[in-house]
Amino acid sequence: MKIKRVLIDGGTHGNELIGIYLIKKFERHPELVQRSGFETLTLLGNPKAIEAGIRYINTDLNRCFDSQLLMDVANYESNYEISRAREICAQFGQEGQTPVDVSINLHGTTANMGSTLILDTIDAFTRGMAAYLSLIEPTLKIYSSASSGRRHDSLRSLAHCGVGLEVGPVAHGTLHAEWFQQTEALVYAILDYLERYNSSPISPQQNLLEHPSLTVYQYAGVVDYPRDKNGEIQAMIHPQLQFKDYEALNPGDPIFLTFDGEAIAYLGDSTVYPIFINEAAYYEKGIAMCLTEKQQF
Amino acid sequence: MKIKRVLIDGGTHGNELIGIYLIKKFERHPELVQRSGFETLTLLGNPKAIEAGIRYINTDLNRCFDSQLLMDVANYESNYEISRAREICAQFGQEGQTPVDVSINLHGTTANMGSTLILDTIDAFTRGMAAYLSLIEPTLKIYSSASSGRRHDSLRSLAHCGVGLEVGPVAHGTLHAEWFQQTEALVYAILDYLERYNSSPISPQQNLLEHPSLTVYQYAGVVDYPRDKNGEIQAMIHPQLQFKDYEALNPGDPIFLTFDGEAIAYLGDSTVYPIFINEAAYYEKGIAMCLTEKQQF
Repeated sequence: MKIKRVLIDGGTHGNELIGIYLIKKFERHPELVQRSGFETLTLLGNPKAIEAGIRYINTDLNRCFDSQLLMDVANYESNYEISRAREICAQFGQEGQTPVDVSINLHGTTANMGSTLILDTIDAFTRGMAAYLSLIEPTLKIYSSASSGRRHDSLRSLAHCGVGLEVGPVAHGTLHAEWFQQTEALVYAILDYLERYNSSPISPQQNLLEHPSLTVYQYAGVVDYPRDKNGEIQAMIHPQLQFKDYEALNPGDPIFLTFDGEAIAYLGDSTVYPIFINEAAYYEKGIAMCLTEKQQF
Repeated sequence: MKIKRVLIDGGTHGNELIGIYLIKKFERHPELVQRSGFETLTLLGNPKAIEAGIRYINTDLNRCFDSQLLMDVANYESNYEISRAREICAQFGQEGQTPVDVSINLHGTTANMGSTLILDTIDAFTRGMAAYLSLIEPTLKIYSSASSGRRHDSLRSLAHCGVGLEVGPVAHGTLHAEWFQQTEALVYAILDYLERYNSSPISPQQNLLEHPSLTVYQYAGVVDYPRDKNGEIQAMIHPQLQFKDYEALNPGDPIFLTFDGEAIAYLGDSTVYPIFINEAAYYEKGIAMCLTEKQQF
């Protein structure tokens, strides 16, 4: 693969301000994201939601890129985000006007995810990127959502290779200078990697030599909050688990705390590494956290 | 003053979950907030916003209790929150069906406010409450909004004495077990204080003996983000100030950081103690932080 065109997008969720203000900065100073050998485009994903300061108008834009969903007229005529997804596909999708090879999707989360690179596919190219970024930012976490289904409905799925940058904890609706600067540095590092890749593709062997112990957290499922028959939440994230993203959760460890102060234990049969713990936007999706398994490459 | 009726309300802002789930708990277990000598009522302030998971439908309910605003038919017919404020006044206001003497207003903030007692008036009664709560929770901060104007438009202004409990940092739209439990403990402590006060009003002298160095942070103004002529934000809270609520900010200290990485200094002429730093809901109000002055009683 030769990379010809790259899309950087923020504001897929209208209340994730870091990505929005970073895209605005790149639009004021396009030279910051220009690299030789490929074209870089920028996008504010959800302008109406950005204007309103909310995640979305009708539905989560980052779940609207399923091809079945986009083909149904009834959907896109009544739903702003589906109609917006069609516009974005018509521009940047593989059949669009300016199809992109790589999509870099900027996000913020209320969970303590630090800075996380989200990969929807694990192959030599993305492992190389992960290894390169880890050298530059050793605290970077690598999350593989390959088995989560996100590859089929996310904005970044319109590119050959979609990657997400997720930083947090940051409250939705707020900026945070350190995460802003870290996201910016990671975007530049990804662009630098792409430039190097174009001129001399890095082999997986080379990566492993440079960064012998790359850790990837593989999606393994989700856990919802305990709820009553009306769907009402019955417990909170346990204080011992709050902000403990990427740390080991063992069978029997406390996971929730009821409003009456009773601990609820994790009943899985193996150690997992939860992420997206207490993400605000996931309450409505029935997700208290995502579970991952730790894998060394 | 003899206290006959107390109102505890959460969900004045529909995305501040701690207060909402605490009120639901009290509604399931009313014995938890019953005390001898007065009646305790509970209220979910903004049910439609709670249902939608957003701060408000049309406007901030906690700015709707201005008597001029409430009298204007044009306002309350077209605005859900003004109409809701009228309902709440008709029930709990001094001319209402069950007028309340004390209103306890539960809130969460994205700022690092710890647990804060907000007082709209400083007198022997509220100083006594502050001193009593500080004995139980030594980390409690006392914020006087007496000169902020909030006394005239907030939900708690309908009572003779309105107090707010503000906890954070907590992202809007999320629960947080430790802040939930601390808010709950503080509500019980306030009710205990009110019970004691009814049976034997505590004199200010007595308070000072028990708690000789009560610190009150007095509202002294607000600072907005630097903006361009279109109102667009030009800078973020400086990393050295982020989460530093209640800490001294001296003239010349960095206060903002532009998106290009330039620090902007605080240009005031005296030391202040900023609070509500980077509160998500205040971006639209033109408030990057509130400034306070530190006062010892």
